[in-house]
This record gives sequence, C-alpha cells and structure tokens, in this order.
Amino acid sequence: MRITIADIAQLIEGDLIGSGQMEITGCAGLKEAKEGDLSFLANPKYEPLAKESKASVILVPKQVSLTGKVVIRVDHPSLAFSKVINHFQKNAISLISVGIHPTAIIAKDAIIAKDVAIGPYVVVEPKAVIGDGSKIYAHSYIGHGTRLGSNCLLYPSVTLREKISLGNHVIIHSGTVIGSDGYGYVTVDGKHVKIPQIGTVIIEDDVEIGANVTIDRARFDKTIIGEGTKIDNLVHIAHNVSVGKNCLIIAQVGISGSTYIGNHVILAGQVGVVGHLTIGDGAVIAAQSGVSKSIQAGQQVFGSPAQPLREAFKTNAYIQRLDHYVQLIQDLKKRVEELEHKDAKDN
Amino acid sequence: MRITIADIAQLIEGDLIGSGQMEITGCAGLKEAKEGDLSFLANPKYEPLAKESKASVILVPKQVSLTGKVVIRVDHPSLAFSKVINHFQKNAISLISVGIHPTAIIAKDAIIAKDVAIGPYVVVEPKAVIGDGSKIYAHSYIGHGTRLGSNCLLYPSVTLREKISLGNHVIIHSGTVIGSDGYGYVTVDGKHVKIPQIGTVIIEDDVEIGANVTIDRARFDKTIIGEGTKIDNLVHIAHNVSVGKNCLIIAQVGISGSTYIGNHVILAGQVGVVGHLTIGDGAVIAAQSGVSKSIQAGQQVFGSPAQPLREAFKTNAYIQRLDHYVQLIQDLKKRVEELEHKDAKDN
Amino acid sequence: MRITIADIAQLIEGDLIGSGQMEITGCAGLKEAKEGDLSFLANPKYEPLAKESKASVILVPKQVSLTGKVVIRVDHPSLAFSKVINHFQKNAISLISVGIHPTAIIAKDAIIAKDVAIGPYVVVEPKAVIGDGSKIYAHSYIGHGTRLGSNCLLYPSVTLREKISLGNHVIIHSGTVIGSDGYGYVTVDGKHVKIPQIGTVIIEDDVEIGANVTIDRARFDKTIIGEGTKIDNLVHIAHNVSVGKNCLIIAQVGISGSTYIGNHVILAGQVGVVGHLTIGDGAVIAAQSGVSKSIQAGQQVFGSPAQPLREAFKTNAYIQRLDHYVQLIQDLKKRVEELEHKDAKDN
Repeated sequence: MRITIADIAQLIEGDLIGSGQMEITGCAGLKEAKEGDLSFLANPKYEPLAKESKASVILVPKQVSLTGKVVIRVDHPSLAFSKVINHFQKNAISLISVGIHPTAIIAKDAIIAKDVAIGPYVVVEPKAVIGDGSKIYAHSYIGHGTRLGSNCLLYPSVTLREKISLGNHVIIHSGTVIGSDGYGYVTVDGKHVKIPQIGTVIIEDDVEIGANVTIDRARFDKTIIGEGTKIDNLVHIAHNVSVGKNCLIIAQVGISGSTYIGNHVILAGQVGVVGHLTIGDGAVIAAQSGVSKSIQAGQQVFGSPAQPLREAFKTNAYIQRLDHYVQLIQDLKKRVEELEHKDAKDN
Repeated sequence: MRITIADIAQLIEGDLIGSGQMEITGCAGLKEAKEGDLSFLANPKYEPLAKESKASVILVPKQVSLTGKVVIRVDHPSLAFSKVINHFQKNAISLISVGIHPTAIIAKDAIIAKDVAIGPYVVVEPKAVIGDGSKIYAHSYIGHGTRLGSNCLLYPSVTLREKISLGNHVIIHSGTVIGSDGYGYVTVDGKHVKIPQIGTVIIEDDVEIGANVTIDRARFDKTIIGEGTKIDNLVHIAHNVSVGKNCLIIAQVGISGSTYIGNHVILAGQVGVVGHLTIGDGAVIAAQSGVSKSIQAGQQVFGSPAQPLREAFKTNAYIQRLDHYVQLIQDLKKRVEELEHKDAKDN
Repeated sequence: MRITIADIAQLIEGDLIGSGQMEITGCAGLKEAKEGDLSFLANPKYEPLAKESKASVILVPKQVSLTGKVVIRVDHPSLAFSKVINHFQKNAISLISVGIHPTAIIAKDAIIAKDVAIGPYVVVEPKAVIGDGSKIYAHSYIGHGTRLGSNCLLYPSVTLREKISLGNHVIIHSGTVIGSDGYGYVTVDGKHVKIPQIGTVIIEDDVEIGANVTIDRARFDKTIIGEGTKIDNLVHIAHNVSVGKNCLIIAQVGISGSTYIGNHVILAGQVGVVGHLTIGDGAVIAAQSGVSKSIQAGQQVFGSPAQPLREAFKTNAYIQRLDHYVQLIQDLKKRVEELEHKDAKDN
C-alpha cells in the first residue's frame, strides 16, 4: 500500500509541480494535514490556508500555483481528492476475502449476489439479500428479509434485525444494532404494556455508522437515515426518527422518537433531542445541548435547554460573572439604604 | 397477521358498535393513535380525549358510547387491550422456531425446558437453566449457572454472564450485557487494585431491556431490576443498584453504584444519578438531569444539579433573562450614582 | 472458595491478633467495608477511620493495634492487601479452562502461547498473537495482526479490530469494541468523504475496560490507554486520544479526538471532553461536566462549560438563589424610583 506523490498524479491524471518521490500516508483537510498527507484546495479563496498547510502535496485548480509547495493541478480538485481517498480506502478494507466462510449459516432462500465476502459464524436469515461486493465480517447477524445494497461493509458483530434495508456503500462498525424494537408502552392500570414495534429502518446510500450504535425500528412505518449521513459511536436513534442527508451525528448523541432532522444538520457530542421536534436543514447543535423545541434551518444552538448560540454565549458569560453581579446588587442595596437614611434625616 | 375490527371484537368477546371490516395494524394510547390503530378508554373522564382520537376502534366500558366512532364495549377495556396487544405480540416474535440449532453449544448439565428455541452459535454454559418457551436468537451467550424463566426472549448477541437470574417474560435486545463486573477498585500506593465483583444480577418478571445496555453484577449481593420495569437503549446500571417495579428508564441514562430506585419512577433520557442515593416511588427526573441528592416520593426534578421542577423552570426563566437583569442592575447603578452625586452637591 | 481470616493471615505471613475463624467474603476500603470484608490501614493517620470500619479484619502495620478489632500485622499492609485480592481474583476467573475450543477458528499463522484458554466460536485472524495465560471467552474476535500480552482476560463478544496491541493483565468486558475507525471526514462539495483511519490502538498493562465501550483507532499513529487505567461501561474514546497511567474514567464519558489526558486523572460519569485539549496530571472532572478548555494539573472542575470546582459551586449557589436576587433587584428599583421621585419633588 506504498503510494508516492507521483503515483497519485498518475491516478488522477494531473500535472505534478515539484518532486513526486515522497510517500503519501494519508489524507486530510488543509488545516488538519500533517507531513505525509495529501490535501486539496477547492476554492481559490482558501489559498492562504493552503500556503500554511503542512500537507506534503495539495491538489489545486489548473490556474493555481503555490510557491514552494508540491501541488498537482487538476480540473476538479475535490473530485480528484475523493478519487484518491477511495483508492486508499479500497486497500484498507481488503482484510476479508471474497467468498463465504464454511461456518457462515446462509438460509436457503437468502440471495447472495456476486463478489460478496462473508466471514466466519455470520448468520444470514431467510429472504435476506446481500448485494454485489458487500463484505460482512465474523459474528454479524442479518435478519429475516433484511436487504443490503452493493458494496456494504459490516465489521464484526453487527446485528441487523429483520426487514431492515441498507442502500449501497453503507459502512457499519462493530457492536451496532439496527432494528431493535422502539421503546413504546401503554400504561394500563400502572403496568407498562408493550406496543408492538412492527415498522422498519431504512439506511440510505453512503451512510457510515460507528460502533455500539442503536437505531430502533419504527412502531409502524420507518426510521430513516438519509444518504451520506455519518454517525459516530454510541449514538441512540429512537423509533420513527427521520434523519436527513449528509448530517454529522457525533458520539453519544440521543434522538428521541419521531423527531425529524433535516439535511446537513450537525449534532455534536452528547446532545439530546426530545421527541416529535423538527430540526431544520443546516442547523448546528453544540455539544451536550438539550434540545426541547424545534430548531429553524441554519440556526446554531447551545445549552440545556438549548438557546441560539449568541444568546447562549452571553448567558454563559453572565453566569460565570454572577459573583460580580451579586456583589454589585449588594453594594447598590447598601448605597440605596444610605440614601434612604439620609433622605429620612433630611425630611 | 391480518386482523380486522370484527376479529378483535370476537377475540375479547365484546359488543361491536359500528363496522368491523377495517384492518387493524397496531395499538396505541388515545393521543398517539393514528388511523388503523386500536386504542382504549379505561376511565370515562377521558371521553373528550377518546372523541378526538384518530384510532380506528376504541375499547370502551359497557356504559360508554362515542357518537360517530367505532367502539367495542367490554367489561374491562384495559385488560381487553392488553389481551389484543399480546395477540399481536405473539405473532411478531415467531421468526425463530422451537428447537435447538445444531450449532448451538449446550453444556451437558445445562437444563433446557420444553418449547425452547435456541438459534445458531448460541453458547449455553454448564448449570444454566432455560425455562419453558424461552427463545434465544443467534450469537447469544448464557453464562455458567445463569437461569432464564419461562417465555423469555433474547435477541441476537445478548451476553448474560455467570449466575444471573431472569424471571419470566423478560425481553432483552441485542448487544446488551448483563452481569459484567461492577467498577470497583481500592487505590493502593497510587495504583487501582480491582475489588472482586462476585455478586449477581436479578431481573424480575416482565422486564424489557433495550439494545447495548450494560447492567453490572453486584460486588457481593445483587443488582436488581424490579418486575415490569422497561429500560431503553444504551443505559448503564452500576453494581448493587436496586431498581423498583414498573419504572421507565429512557435511553442513555446512567445510574451509579448502590443507588436505590423505588417503584413507578421515570428517568428520562441521558439522566445521571450519583451513587448511594434513594429515589422515592413515583419520582420523575426530566431529561439530562444530574441527580446528586436523594429524591422524595412523587417529586419531579430537572436540571444539573437537579431542582424541583417548578423551581428549575423558574431558574431557567431567570437564566434566559439574565441579559435583562444585568441591564437593570447597570441602570440602577447609574441612577444611584446620580442620586449620590446630587446628594453630595445638596449637602 | 471459602477463606477464613486465619487462611489470610497464613497467605500473607502476618501476625493475627484476634479470632481467625470468620469467613471472609470480600475486600473493600475502610469506609466502604461491611461485615465479612477484609480491609487495610496503610497510613497510621487513618487509625480513627479504621476504628470505625465495619471490616471483619484489617491489615495493619506492625506497630499498630486497634482495640476490639481483629487485625493482621504485616510489614506492608497495602502490598499484602493486593496479594489477598489477587488470590480472590484468581479463583473468580476460573470459569474458562485452558485449551482451545474445537469451534474456535485460529488462523494458521496466528501465534498462541502456552496456558491459553479460547472459548467457543472465537475467531483469531492471521498474524494475531495471544500471550501466555490469556483467556478469551466465546464469540470474541481478534483481528489481523492484533497482539495480546500475557494473562489478558476477554469476556464474551469482545471485538478487537486489526493491528491492536494489548499489554499484560488487560481485562476487557463484553460488547467492547477496540479499534473501530475514527470519525473523520473531509467535506467535499457538501458531501462527507471518509478519511482512512489506518492507525492503531495501544492498551498498556493492567488496564481494565468495561462493557460496550468503544475506543477508536487513530487516523495514523495511535490511540493510547496508559498502564493501570480503569475504564467503566459505555465510554467513548475517539481517535488519537492519549490517556495516561492510572486514570479512572467512569461510565458514559466521551473524549473527543486528539485530546491528551495526563496520569491519575479522574473523569466522572457522563463527562464530555472536547478534542485537542490537554488535561493535566491528577485533574478531577466532576460528573456531567463539559470540558471545552484545557485543564491544569491537579485542578478540579465542574459544570458545562466546566469551571474550577469552588467557582462552580459558588455559581450553582447563585443560580439556585436567582429568585432572591431578582426580587432584590426589583425591590431596589422601586426604592430608587422613590428616591428619584422625592428628589424631583425636593428640587
């Protein structure tokens, strides 16, 4: 998996400016990149950032030159960058080879497409469908009637319950459970009687889901994770939640039942969202916030309960200065008393 | 699993008022019910709610009539409702058939009662007991001496460590671990020396536990989850905790060691409870609260640290108006200064 | 596993003062100890604590006598205490016997040292190394090239991805995932493109990790958990985090990427730590805190956002008295108005 700058230039058919000998060991954004990294400049307005980047090679638009930097000029730097990453990625996931391990238990009426890799002790239940090129590591469970699209990647010990649907290029990390029953009860004479959870979960294309995540099946209907959304570890998504496209949901977030989340929403770590809300497109919820009201598109909120970001920062500044304000109040009280005292004497 | 209103009327031996042709696809409370749902009215005082309900059929007491609604009159609507739900439920969990899969490893001295279903790659260790009608999906692990009552349901990849005890009708979702060691160390010369955790966990009848939950075994003695309590996903319950009957513990709650929780307590999502506390019967802890003091029976609290609900709401209202109060203080300061100035001039 | 006080005196070659007949069922610190417990007094200044302890026997330094208490006199009480605990511990983990279960799948070029126990359905991938005396329970997965030191203990369903390194005497509880991909993307034209995560995780000697924990592999380089650190259940540790030695990380903590945590740090339950911070040696972060700035060595903080403990307590006291202060402000406002009114009249 040794790859040099020159190899990358060739892969993306770009014009290399500078030496091509150095080995590239990873990819990152301009800011985060370290020596050995490939990065890219999509928009010429970020040239100053590119000039300060520690990346060892930067993909740039045809007209751009960065003095003193090794660059590769291409028509579409962002597309070229994705292409290189995919190349890296393809090598990274080659630890499981195509074929079905003899200990995997595949139901007779399950459908296994071509170029599929299924590891030891995997169980594929009746009527399940595994699409072309999908790879399933050891100890994973594919429930009755569950369907994986093409080129999905399931790490060891993933559980997909019955009738779940995964699109193409979905990655799921170990220990994650998709399609567990939603948490729904009716209280009858003080006892909680279970409401059957007979809906499903739909995971669209290019979703990645971290380790030990839980996504519950809908009561009826469906829980949805939209295309391109990336979910970190230990996240909980309750029944009937709808998450839009290209969202980022960071570790230990919890989303309660029937909440609707738009596209390009960011939920930072340990955020909690109450049920039956609407979070608009592009909203950003800062870490540990508790969201109990719907959030408009583009809004940034913070706190528990969450406030718009500017107000939240102001509120926090006030809170951290409460000592000062309380002293001010007590000082004013004294001074008012003094004035009142004098006033009483004067009259 | 097609079931009509007429079928339900027959099942519960009730008097159907209205058309019985419609297919019923689920059950819900009066408020949450949608078209296709069955609901019930236990107490005549909720008649207004029943009249507004979208349920397609409502079970009502003998004397009640709801004009324009399809109803089924029965002696005990709540009992009849439970009966219908159980009927739905029985059909829902039929994906695993009675019998022991040939790849399941059952210790010679384990006891497997009748009508048990054990899926592929399940491991049942020595002296374990699996009660009548229990169903255990693939990849689950039943530790040494662990006992399941009758009609338990374990989804794939549940781990029950050694000497755990489950009552009857217990449901546990995938990835959940019961009986992991409690977190206990004694610090000796700066190093944390493990204290053996040799107690157990007792899960009583009719408990349901979500996915990827962890319930630790006691140091000695026992961690207990009381009858009828329902636990959501990713909850952590530490060693020696005692949870009462019919509690609701929502996703991502954490309960620290040796805390005692009464009956009918509700802990909303992401709540944290400190160790060695007592939470009284019927207490309600709002989402994301941090509970560091014992809570009396029936009390409702919110916040971190948690306050009684009314005070917490008041506090929050003040916090969100701090801007206003700070301006008031600053305005008062100016006015007091002015008065002092005038006073100085006058004298 | 029946052990009396006399047995313990013999095991640690100490002088028993009092009756040796009682059975000892566990070990604990002086404060936490109950009847049947062994405890120890390392520092004579804690004699008052020892006198009040409910422990049934206390290991004490040679010169100490505790009237009315059963004690065992030894040169080094803390070392002797550890010795007894290890003795208990050794018995506790004997549920799995040395040998490789016939259903375990061990790659031909994996190296299995001597006295190893490997349970049913364990998968050990190529080039993995399992050190002397290590025990791996059912359904665990040891990835390609992953190395366990000697005397490690993996409970059922642990997943160690490829190229992970465990030291000696590491304990990992069920459902835990080590080496899942870090959460890293570059956003290209609104889509999140995965950055390959090709680093590793290093777990040093004597680390214990609870159930359903996730520790992500580094992007490049390594995520590290230092020697003697103890991690509770459902903790999330992101890529490139470095945790020092002898830390305590309580349940449901989340640590974001590239954060550096010193030695002897305590993170209490549900704490969240932002990425790229430094938490100094011996720092203590109270439960549910949100840490968004680096913390100096020895500092104690609380709150979200976290403040130094004393300030945080003060702030909380003020917050809980906001009602009082708001009334004070409103009262002052009235009184100032009155003074102004009089002043206007007077002039």
